[in-house]
Amino acid sequence: MNNTRSSPLTVLHQSSECRARCGILQTLHGTIKTPVFMPVGTQATVKAVTPENLEELGAQIILGNTYHLFIRPGHALIREFGGLHSFMNWNRPLLTDSGGFQIFSLKDLATISEEGAGFRSHLDGAKLFLSPEDAVHVQEALGSDIMMVLDTCIPWPSDREETERATALTGRWAARSRQSQSDTGQLLFGIVQGGMFPDLRQKAAEELIDIGFDGYALGGLSVGEPKELMYDMTESTVIHLPDDHPVYLMGVGTPEDLVEGVFRGVDMFDCVMPTRNARNGMLFTSQGRLVIKNSCYRDDRKPLDEHCSCYTCRNYSRAYLRHLFMCREILAYQLNSIHNLHYYCSLMAEMRHAIEQDNFTTFRKNFYSRRGEE
Amino acid sequence: MNNTRSSPLTVLHQSSECRARCGILQTLHGTIKTPVFMPVGTQATVKAVTPENLEELGAQIILGNTYHLFIRPGHALIREFGGLHSFMNWNRPLLTDSGGFQIFSLKDLATISEEGAGFRSHLDGAKLFLSPEDAVHVQEALGSDIMMVLDTCIPWPSDREETERATALTGRWAARSRQSQSDTGQLLFGIVQGGMFPDLRQKAAEELIDIGFDGYALGGLSVGEPKELMYDMTESTVIHLPDDHPVYLMGVGTPEDLVEGVFRGVDMFDCVMPTRNARNGMLFTSQGRLVIKNSCYRDDRKPLDEHCSCYTCRNYSRAYLRHLFMCREILAYQLNSIHNLHYYCSLMAEMRHAIEQDNFTTFRKNFYSRRGEE
Repeated sequence: MNNTRSSPLTVLHQSSECRARCGILQTLHGTIKTPVFMPVGTQATVKAVTPENLEELGAQIILGNTYHLFIRPGHALIREFGGLHSFMNWNRPLLTDSGGFQIFSLKDLATISEEGAGFRSHLDGAKLFLSPEDAVHVQEALGSDIMMVLDTCIPWPSDREETERATALTGRWAARSRQSQSDTGQLLFGIVQGGMFPDLRQKAAEELIDIGFDGYALGGLSVGEPKELMYDMTESTVIHLPDDHPVYLMGVGTPEDLVEGVFRGVDMFDCVMPTRNARNGMLFTSQGRLVIKNSCYRDDRKPLDEHCSCYTCRNYSRAYLRHLFMCREILAYQLNSIHNLHYYCSLMAEMRHAIEQDNFTTFRKNFYSRRGEE
Repeated sequence: MNNTRSSPLTVLHQSSECRARCGILQTLHGTIKTPVFMPVGTQATVKAVTPENLEELGAQIILGNTYHLFIRPGHALIREFGGLHSFMNWNRPLLTDSGGFQIFSLKDLATISEEGAGFRSHLDGAKLFLSPEDAVHVQEALGSDIMMVLDTCIPWPSDREETERATALTGRWAARSRQSQSDTGQLLFGIVQGGMFPDLRQKAAEELIDIGFDGYALGGLSVGEPKELMYDMTESTVIHLPDDHPVYLMGVGTPEDLVEGVFRGVDMFDCVMPTRNARNGMLFTSQGRLVIKNSCYRDDRKPLDEHCSCYTCRNYSRAYLRHLFMCREILAYQLNSIHNLHYYCSLMAEMRHAIEQDNFTTFRKNFYSRRGEE
């Protein structure tokens, strides 16, 4: 088995000063301009927004969580409905994770063996099992455009021995995942583990490349380690991945993390931060972060961000958004989520534009200088 | 002081068989086709829907609650923002209640005197006071198209003496309200109390007509009394109101109540039922009520109502809506609220159409016969 597939990514522009690049990623449900941020739709909905909201704010692809959908409502039901796209009324591309990260988050409720991951449902305690093959078959039932292999997540900190053992298991699972894939046209991405050990990351990357995947993800980052270490691990791993394949930094991150990731050659990101923070009243703006409950916004007529063109900023004042948030009105979560997701998607669009103009390093410098408090 | 104002209502069609009628109500923010249902937007938002949702589902006018807005964020702030329309981004007509009903719901926290209503904020216990004049001035600050006089709400059951006393006070407050009104072009409606005593209702109606209001509301109904009594009181009160003025049955009700109200000559309704029930998973359909959490909907591909053209029914299955509801996803509340409000607004549109065709009594018969379980 080796990497005989052609890459779904076409690189259109490569920065002359850094690894930042932009391109087009081809999927069953259409093309995606990269670098791209994927809003998280855990339970077959991106929380508090409609598919039309997502399209308007510029989401090109969203992410679904296999663990959650496997447990409720079940992949068999979703397959009956023609897949996750049709079930949730989303016609653009979808990526599903493998469930690994959520299962490992269950800690004592999960048991890992060579065969796969045994775990108990967080809903009713039911005993469940997911092998690498199962994870692929569940994602084939969900009908996502991009599937992820089941991997073992390595907590931080972990010693070398533990990291080596878990990374090797991830490698064997990756080979089984690739073998079990049917001919559906769905893309399958491998996940590079290796903890915080650059040589283990390199070895893991080489093994995955040898198996051959449509794209390569960096797993086990943004798990509590210092920012600089995450950036270093990203940088030292990306250089071992094929230049012509998409690179996905999983579960990352802050706006700054996106800029730093793109700078280091990452093409894809996902994170719950824009939606979760929106529901907690923390809004991202071109001037930095804004906590809407602060009393200084009580009679503030300005939009959240005067440079933002989202539905929320076009129609509502900070004072109104503060009022809704203080009242815990559902509309607060809707409007805040639209704004934060628009911020993330627009930031990616700005980065793509800067790369096309070959001035990404200038963009990066300006990004920091215009944000007073960052 | 007498009724020298011209009515804002133009009656276009009067049923030849009953008191049902349709017409056009003129307000500062445009005209409203009656009979009309007004979605409730208590805290400057109709819960879980956007203004655009409301426009698309056919809401012509919404209601704001003076008590809630007086307490938070305060009418002075809303006036600074150009009024409630501008604050909440709603450009169609708005009605505000007077705060009376909410203050009386506070029970032991409220003290009623000749002067007005003393009460404590349900948020922080602050001691507050609202006179009939204050209620008008607060609503002038809010800039609603239709204002309501402060009234004393009479619980059910109440004896004749208590009802007589409270109704007389409401009458004196109504006169003071009318006196205190400025020349803003906003409409002011009187509220007919009188409990469950037809002669007291008649007397209250005559006193209000003598003062002269732009419209007349029936208060103190749907407060626990049997349905038949509510319908009887509506019928026996409406006949004493001027034929050419709008009649508003406050806080009512179920779909059946709307049909029965229109049959008896009511032009306007408001109720939290469509939105509150939506958030609790109870949906209104042309076949009757549907409880979305029921397991029979687990794999049901049909929309909530096959005869419904709302956004929710056009795009989502019962199975998906059940999944969202079981997961307590915010989108469940959004989609359910859109559907239920659309149902209420469409029911009113159907009634208007039936009245125009002068076959409202046939409509009423069919309405009941197509709903198996009602």
